[in-house]
Amino acid sequence: MIEIGQKATFSKTIGESDIYLFAGITGDLNPLHVNEAAAKNMLFGKRIAHGMLTSSFISTVIASKLPGPGTIYMEQNSRFLKPVFIGDTITACVEVAELLPRGKARLTTQVYNQDGDLVVDGSALVKLPAVADLHEE
Amino acid sequence: MIEIGQKATFSKTIGESDIYLFAGITGDLNPLHVNEAAAKNMLFGKRIAHGMLTSSFISTVIASKLPGPGTIYMEQNSRFLKPVFIGDTITACVEVAELLPRGKARLTTQVYNQDGDLVVDGSALVKLPAVADLHEE
Amino acid sequence: MIEIGQKATFSKTIGESDIYLFAGITGDLNPLHVNEAAAKNMLFGKRIAHGMLTSSFISTVIASKLPGPGTIYMEQNSRFLKPVFIGDTITACVEVAELLPRGKARLTTQVYNQDGDLVVDGSALVKLPAVADLHEE
Amino acid sequence: MIEIGQKATFSKTIGESDIYLFAGITGDLNPLHVNEAAAKNMLFGKRIAHGMLTSSFISTVIASKLPGPGTIYMEQNSRFLKPVFIGDTITACVEVAELLPRGKARLTTQVYNQDGDLVVDGSALVKLPAVADLHEE
Repeated sequence: MIEIGQKATFSKTIGESDIYLFAGITGDLNPLHVNEAAAKNMLFGKRIAHGMLTSSFISTVIASKLPGPGTIYMEQNSRFLKPVFIGDTITACVEVAELLPRGKARLTTQVYNQDGDLVVDGSALVKLPAVADLHEE
Repeated sequence: MIEIGQKATFSKTIGESDIYLFAGITGDLNPLHVNEAAAKNMLFGKRIAHGMLTSSFISTVIASKLPGPGTIYMEQNSRFLKPVFIGDTITACVEVAELLPRGKARLTTQVYNQDGDLVVDGSALVKLPAVADLHEE
Repeated sequence: MIEIGQKATFSKTIGESDIYLFAGITGDLNPLHVNEAAAKNMLFGKRIAHGMLTSSFISTVIASKLPGPGTIYMEQNSRFLKPVFIGDTITACVEVAELLPRGKARLTTQVYNQDGDLVVDGSALVKLPAVADLHEE
Repeated sequence: MIEIGQKATFSKTIGESDIYLFAGITGDLNPLHVNEAAAKNMLFGKRIAHGMLTSSFISTVIASKLPGPGTIYMEQNSRFLKPVFIGDTITACVEVAELLPRGKARLTTQVYNQDGDLVVDGSALVKLPAVADLHEE
């Protein structure tokens, strides 16, 4: 039973390979992500993770843990607040904020780094898994 | 010069390897994405791409083409409307919707499949690249 | 002992993942390689492997088999003659063509597809491994 | 309009994951590339990128920027002059050297490291994109 206030998290140290593979999949090989020499002279002084990579870990929590398998992911809103660097350990946090009609829920979705800085803030809208859906897996 | 109505796109055929690598990076290895046998009995009948994977191509257009290098990506809102299957060719479309004070802009962000179905709808908020930023690259 | 006429080969069926990973590493995500819908209307009618990917298997033979570990790869000349498609099984062939002064050799380097078509033709210049170098491994 | 002397570049910091993925695709897992302990006692003292990996970024410039989409890549000649190490930032440079009959061109192709050392020197032969070809994309 999903209830307001329930929480779940997923953590990972962001490796260079995470950023490089994400760049390769998406085609976003901008200097900010894959050129250390150029990034030195740019806003953050070194290579950073793609904002969409960092926020993708929210999806992992939603699909795997809370609400978990069978959830239908309807909407994700993300604000990219701080850079994530190679070697940073990020924690994606999901909390049930609101239960809505027709089996839907609003989730608070946040990603923190190892210093407790909020790097991505946002919210998601999901359709909660029905019992029948869960049995399918 | 960025103007309202400007558009840019990026297209890719979603390969199984895209979904598998994205699953590996994020840790979202749910059956819906990586278990064909289970997916047969689930909502869409076969494996689908992660919604966050599909919407990540928006980031590629923003970072590489419009507004392009030097853009600061502040916010992304995405609604996942239809599934994307292995072998689908998706096109991420970005259009400048509104120019805001202090060098910011609101972009319309949409992803279509090869049949013209809107699979992800949304919008982004960005800080436009300053001329100085562009010179840095 | 390396002699003129010695041959070695390496074969692989080119998977979509080979092309997609190569695209991701190099940043060459051109439609010809990763967009099946667009490739239909282009020269070859479907997605093809990057020419440099196909010719890279030559390097595998040189480094692993002939002349093998300890070889210094000095030069590679490649002519891209025919397209390689997803699912094609290519065979990279290396033959010792000429022994040169100071421990160097000229190699004939060719890649064939499963129909026996020559897809990449060329030659390499290498410095042969010294006995001492081989012992290092 | 392509003219003699036109230039374009692409830069990337070579990550360990680039070398490892390239090794995995091609099957060239020689100690020089993937065995740090063995590489310590070999010619360069640490793991190096495959020469064909470094020269593949030339292909990215040719296909994406100059001459760009629609170009037919006919021939690549590369001389591997210096090693590229993990963490090096390389820049692949393409310059139009000669315009040839029947829409072909000879390009000078060079790769430099972050210290300005020429690591790969060479040339390419291409068939320039026709206007019709460009429309196809």
